[in-house]
Amino acid sequence: MAVYTQVSDQELNGFLSSYDVGNVLSFKGIAEGVENSNFLLRTSKASFILTLYEKRVHEEDLPFFLGLMNHMATRGVSCPLPVAAQDGRFYRTLNGRPAALITFLDGVSVKVPNAAQCEAAGAALANFHLASADFELTRANSLGIQDWRPLYNKCAPEANAVVPGMRALIAEELTALEEDWPEGLPQGVIHADLFPDNVFFLDDRLSGIIDFYFACNDSFAYDLSVTLNAWCFDDTQQFEPDKARALLCGYDSVRQLTREERKALPLLSRGSAMRFLLTRLHDWIFHPDGALVDPKDPKEFLARLEFHRQNGNQLLGLLP
Amino acid sequence: MAVYTQVSDQELNGFLSSYDVGNVLSFKGIAEGVENSNFLLRTSKASFILTLYEKRVHEEDLPFFLGLMNHMATRGVSCPLPVAAQDGRFYRTLNGRPAALITFLDGVSVKVPNAAQCEAAGAALANFHLASADFELTRANSLGIQDWRPLYNKCAPEANAVVPGMRALIAEELTALEEDWPEGLPQGVIHADLFPDNVFFLDDRLSGIIDFYFACNDSFAYDLSVTLNAWCFDDTQQFEPDKARALLCGYDSVRQLTREERKALPLLSRGSAMRFLLTRLHDWIFHPDGALVDPKDPKEFLARLEFHRQNGNQLLGLLP
Repeated sequence: MAVYTQVSDQELNGFLSSYDVGNVLSFKGIAEGVENSNFLLRTSKASFILTLYEKRVHEEDLPFFLGLMNHMATRGVSCPLPVAAQDGRFYRTLNGRPAALITFLDGVSVKVPNAAQCEAAGAALANFHLASADFELTRANSLGIQDWRPLYNKCAPEANAVVPGMRALIAEELTALEEDWPEGLPQGVIHADLFPDNVFFLDDRLSGIIDFYFACNDSFAYDLSVTLNAWCFDDTQQFEPDKARALLCGYDSVRQLTREERKALPLLSRGSAMRFLLTRLHDWIFHPDGALVDPKDPKEFLARLEFHRQNGNQLLGLLP
Repeated sequence: MAVYTQVSDQELNGFLSSYDVGNVLSFKGIAEGVENSNFLLRTSKASFILTLYEKRVHEEDLPFFLGLMNHMATRGVSCPLPVAAQDGRFYRTLNGRPAALITFLDGVSVKVPNAAQCEAAGAALANFHLASADFELTRANSLGIQDWRPLYNKCAPEANAVVPGMRALIAEELTALEEDWPEGLPQGVIHADLFPDNVFFLDDRLSGIIDFYFACNDSFAYDLSVTLNAWCFDDTQQFEPDKARALLCGYDSVRQLTREERKALPLLSRGSAMRFLLTRLHDWIFHPDGALVDPKDPKEFLARLEFHRQNGNQLLGLLP
């Protein structure tokens, strides 16, 4: 949540000379996004976000991410629209980094979503999945089930120092997930990171979704389980069934879940809890001293994993 | 340059219920300001900056700072206007910190000002000085000449580790400044920190000045010397006489310098170089590990001090 790369007025003007976006009225670095530098730009024509992609986003993925954003926006999904430069490209170079201009989206993310907002988030996710059908690019999920064991192996020596006993629990659970992971579920482009801070609201009306930088091809129901884990637990890690019911209903009202997806949802939810547990555990153990971003607590997702291990069938009872 | 205190949507809405500023359209933390947390707020009525004052700004100074901003804005100085809450006060409390809403100002600060922009900055500073005449509150300069020796005493043991020989140079210069410091120059409220990043432009037109949090009562010509040191050296610390001439002319065209002020300018410029040398040296030596803000290099102001010691009379030749 910081600006890693500064951009002077001269550097900005040089960059903008390749775009037709009007004259600069204001330009401010904003404390948003993970490991990118973001600026809010107002011009005589409109407001934009300028993003400089730092090391975590690979340049070779930008045609997928920005092309997807453009695809979604033109199919009625409320999301930012990447602005093409005069040469038609969606990104250029600024201060040695790939950089893109995207349109500014009104709305505020909510810290504690209510049930109506959960329902709207579910519906938006389903719309995203449906709209991805005719998007031609693909991107493998680099944080999918096949990537969890290498992450575990890297973190295992330190895991019990974070939470006593966590190492054995993860090992046991990983084996179970690898054995039972469902195959053949409906697939497509998934958002893969639809946390409340990536969804904007104006009151209860969802005004847009942002941050497509984990998007990839995987099963739709897995994405739904990611979203469920992100939206339906309170800040003491207690499951909130009313919010889960609302989220699942919102999703199903736009894209009906298949029988196989419904059946797989408890296991997928254990998997998506594992995915965030492992990446947070990794960042917790290996974050550099003096990093500008505090690592997030892995224990939040350990609690979700334990909930799903113990209460798998509760989710099935909440499905519409 | 960071957000130190997070503000959730609920906390924001609670705070804004004491204001009549319309409905929230967007709210983003911005990476601006030193040791305050700043947010850009857009509502259905206008755009604002929300500032949470962290430890460096003392609450007892806020009536002076915000009252001054209001005074200046109502006297035609282009600057943000503090927004009064429904109870008429200019600040309230948010997340345990004093917090104020101020109007958003269009414009972009320039990294390398040109001569026209220097002239505009000089004129704006003179306007600021004239407009302060009927402002009723006062605030002592807490970084004035009487405060330099205690700062020096604190930094002296480490000074030569930063630049070999710097300790003796500062000691000699401090004694000279204390002996010769001019008394009786025209006084009033000064900005005291009018660096290029605190002045916004739309092309060469100055659109406003910001950051009143060092403002205090002191001599106007001292403030001019602060501004001269901030605007008229290039990034290799070379003096730029064309910019200095433009700045001095811009100032003098709005508020004519007295004979005593003109004569004092070289010594005052050594003093203002000393003030920023000492505070930067202090922050360089004592900044905490892992601080969110990188300390600024004191050597930039050592170079300015040495320039003024060696070329004092050059400034006199540039005066209109």
